[in-house]
Amino acid sequence: MNSTMQMMQNHSNDMSMAGMNMTVMQECIEACSACEQACTMCADSMMAPEMATCRSMCSNAADMSAAMMRVMLRPTGMSREVMSSMLQATMVMCMACADECMMHADMSADCKMCAEVCRQCAAACQAMIDSMAVV
Amino acid sequence: MNSTMQMMQNHSNDMSMAGMNMTVMQECIEACSACEQACTMCADSMMAPEMATCRSMCSNAADMSAAMMRVMLRPTGMSREVMSSMLQATMVMCMACADECMMHADMSADCKMCAEVCRQCAAACQAMIDSMAVV
Amino acid sequence: MNSTMQMMQNHSNDMSMAGMNMTVMQECIEACSACEQACTMCADSMMAPEMATCRSMCSNAADMSAAMMRVMLRPTGMSREVMSSMLQATMVMCMACADECMMHADMSADCKMCAEVCRQCAAACQAMIDSMAVV
Amino acid sequence: MNSTMQMMQNHSNDMSMAGMNMTVMQECIEACSACEQACTMCADSMMAPEMATCRSMCSNAADMSAAMMRVMLRPTGMSREVMSSMLQATMVMCMACADECMMHADMSADCKMCAEVCRQCAAACQAMIDSMAVV
Repeated sequence: MNSTMQMMQNHSNDMSMAGMNMTVMQECIEACSACEQACTMCADSMMAPEMATCRSMCSNAADMSAAMMRVMLRPTGMSREVMSSMLQATMVMCMACADECMMHADMSADCKMCAEVCRQCAAACQAMIDSMAVV
Repeated sequence: MNSTMQMMQNHSNDMSMAGMNMTVMQECIEACSACEQACTMCADSMMAPEMATCRSMCSNAADMSAAMMRVMLRPTGMSREVMSSMLQATMVMCMACADECMMHADMSADCKMCAEVCRQCAAACQAMIDSMAVV
Repeated sequence: MNSTMQMMQNHSNDMSMAGMNMTVMQECIEACSACEQACTMCADSMMAPEMATCRSMCSNAADMSAAMMRVMLRPTGMSREVMSSMLQATMVMCMACADECMMHADMSADCKMCAEVCRQCAAACQAMIDSMAVV
Repeated sequence: MNSTMQMMQNHSNDMSMAGMNMTVMQECIEACSACEQACTMCADSMMAPEMATCRSMCSNAADMSAAMMRVMLRPTGMSREVMSSMLQATMVMCMACADECMMHADMSADCKMCAEVCRQCAAACQAMIDSMAVV
């Protein structure tokens, strides 16, 4: 268990959003962090002009997943409504970025891996939305 | 006209998202920037324990409006679907933060001003959504 | 006077870092904000492969100036030593980015303007360092 | 090996900064990421007024380590001078934050863990500086 997960567990009892599934949220935090990193690197490595859309979308996905991650790391002011709309936005962003990256996955190992990481992030956001609907 | 606005206008013809209303977007960029700054300061100045929710929400609003601003500054990979969901999330976030700040606006000049700046940001996001619906 | 400046002035008496020159700091906050925005746009608009270094440096300058701006917006935990080293790093970053952008200022109006905004940010950071040395 | 590390290794041959020690840099990327997360949570969990400096410094350390991480994830525009000054600033920031957190480590499990993560980040930055001096 890494330092972030240990700190999150310390706060599992005092979180303002009752019924939050901590396991699902921890996976989503990890997925957002991986997405920010993969997208930042992917954007940096795209050289060709035809990769311009991909670069731009990857930069956007990095910023959105970074913001999403931070919001999940702040239990004190957590709000169901805010969380839902941000998870939705992150999911849409990550799927759009994954689709764009997949268009040139044959030519770029970065894009192929970045697309995979984006999809995992979108899936982790969907799992969060699902877990919130249950409670 | 500041440097950002001048650069945006240089790109008004090559943007991938046809029909974007540049005036509305420029106001939204400014509103997001002001929101990030006000929320960062407001979060820093809240001392009392009963301000904990406000601090946390302000920190979230700062991160979300910063991400929203950057996405609008990247015309190359702009996508209507991504833009819509992020504007929606920013609006929800800013209204939640404004409501929380208003709860102690009597005690704090920071909160009062921050609430106002958050509302302006939410309104600017709504104006963006409206302008996209028209086109 | 915009909302950020008004909030900063409200806190000019309770700042932990005595002797901070508020006028110089406000200009530096503005310069960092403009730098983040110009660099984000410049990075997005560079299409050619030979612009790859410029794109990457602009993305770095955007992130560094954003972090620098936020630190100045948090009077409560301000530390002279932290401030000095961050201002130094931001100045080095912005000058490196300006030099790179100037190498193709003839071909790109974005690069020309971005270089100018980066230089103004570096100058504003230097003014902060100078003002702190005096006190 | 996680996705970020795999992507970094794909680029170990085309990095503009010859002689960069990839193992040391990967550890520093991980340390910065952990620092951003721990500091974000620590800032969120501090309730008492006497924790205000700690909250503010943790928020600063989160932003600085996030910027540092991203710069290391962009091999294309890497510059020795920029890297050195940013590593120095991150190190100073993390040590200042660790010292502040340790002042109330007895009262707060969050602060104790956050101080440890900040120190590891500072050490990882120092290791990067040392590795760059050797080459």
